[in-house]
Amino acid sequence: MQSWVDGRPAGSLSLKDRGLAYGDGLFETIAVRGGRPGLLDRHLARLAEGARRLSFDLDLDLVREELLAFSAQLDEGVAKLMVTRGDGLRGYALPGTPPRRILMGSPYPAYPEGHAEQGIELFPCLTRLAEQPLLAGLKHLNRLEQVLARAEWQDARFAEGLMRDVSGRVIEGVFSNLFIVRAGVLLTADLGRSGVAGVMRAELLDQAAVQGIVTQVRDIGYEELLTADEVFLCNSLYGVWPVRRFAGHDWSVGPLTRKLQALARDLLDS
Amino acid sequence: MQSWVDGRPAGSLSLKDRGLAYGDGLFETIAVRGGRPGLLDRHLARLAEGARRLSFDLDLDLVREELLAFSAQLDEGVAKLMVTRGDGLRGYALPGTPPRRILMGSPYPAYPEGHAEQGIELFPCLTRLAEQPLLAGLKHLNRLEQVLARAEWQDARFAEGLMRDVSGRVIEGVFSNLFIVRAGVLLTADLGRSGVAGVMRAELLDQAAVQGIVTQVRDIGYEELLTADEVFLCNSLYGVWPVRRFAGHDWSVGPLTRKLQALARDLLDS
Repeated sequence: MQSWVDGRPAGSLSLKDRGLAYGDGLFETIAVRGGRPGLLDRHLARLAEGARRLSFDLDLDLVREELLAFSAQLDEGVAKLMVTRGDGLRGYALPGTPPRRILMGSPYPAYPEGHAEQGIELFPCLTRLAEQPLLAGLKHLNRLEQVLARAEWQDARFAEGLMRDVSGRVIEGVFSNLFIVRAGVLLTADLGRSGVAGVMRAELLDQAAVQGIVTQVRDIGYEELLTADEVFLCNSLYGVWPVRRFAGHDWSVGPLTRKLQALARDLLDS
Repeated sequence: MQSWVDGRPAGSLSLKDRGLAYGDGLFETIAVRGGRPGLLDRHLARLAEGARRLSFDLDLDLVREELLAFSAQLDEGVAKLMVTRGDGLRGYALPGTPPRRILMGSPYPAYPEGHAEQGIELFPCLTRLAEQPLLAGLKHLNRLEQVLARAEWQDARFAEGLMRDVSGRVIEGVFSNLFIVRAGVLLTADLGRSGVAGVMRAELLDQAAVQGIVTQVRDIGYEELLTADEVFLCNSLYGVWPVRRFAGHDWSVGPLTRKLQALARDLLDS
């Protein structure tokens, strides 16, 4: 598959890149259908927020332009965009060079049909998310916690894993955000201390509110998850997966989950 | 300067490398003098511990062999060794490919003479270290906290910055470990929740014990730092820098600091 660095075809990168040295960068994983990047404004908004908080002097118009051109060439698949702080000298001090833009194409992942239809079983990860408000919410390149969590299970029966923070709060999946439904209210974790604020999560929160569904973004305790009426995961590639089983608890696929799944499908197909 | 990937000269890296994608790797920064890598066994021991905790199937004999050959060519300077999990597929699951070995040479940094002689002023970083026992102590490639901390000051009057953890404990410098002396006892922070366990820190703890100095590795509160008799920093490139000033507090360079500075100098020159 094709890949670009700073707008030109390339398959490799300088060893001096600070994305490699320190994980000093951000990324977005974008569904491309019919030559168009999905949820483009949401992805760019999160990238802009990350650039602001990490002090990247990023030309967002240029990023948008390249992403559109790259998606047109890719046609169907996943565009992974990485933005790094470019080459560094030795040491942590900011080099003052412009950020580097990396685009990589890959085929659309072949998720089993059953994940969306019947729902999935969630693995209880022991790896806890550290609390770091300065990085929370961002999709940055420091992802060792996710690597450790994903390495906890090999059994294909688990499609995703649940991650809690060091204080035990329920946060998200390894590569998904988590929603629960309690008494008709749609809840997802506050990501002010840890976690990745997914673009599909943001989109579903907005769309649900438009549909008159009451939404809450707040801390979620473990017991609240276990006693929820409905549980589901989302991301910008697969949309919504109902959670059918976790830690000996079983759920059927609920009506709000199906409603939001249909909304997500519309968003990804549009 | 020269650089090698997997034992062969190379200046670039696959865009698919998981060191770039997730910071999924480890590094060592090694002083090279007279063609020999300094504190080699310590560096390799820390790397081995990191490889074990991150489940890298690393051939340490090969790493040692390459490091010796690379240092012989470099002669004088700094050898930066990175080990990444190699190329990945999309997603966090471990790819099962062997780790990639990267070696990069750079000139020996030109630290001002005064830093070691008269001591340095320490900047009080606001960036706090998150508590993540699974990664604490390791020199891994997830270093955004250090990037944020180092970006807090531009004034060259500060040679280093102090980092505390989210609970306020005194942990380390941005690129150094910290020691304090209180009533003749040499103290450094426990790094079980955050921080990088430096090879010079380990060496000084051992050497001090051999010299009959009482050492303690434990949590250090902020007030303990401010009321310490002596304060100094160390790493494997510059040895020991006395801390002369921090947050309105002044210290003169104490006798234990000078003793350990001489020990560090011997280690780096040997």
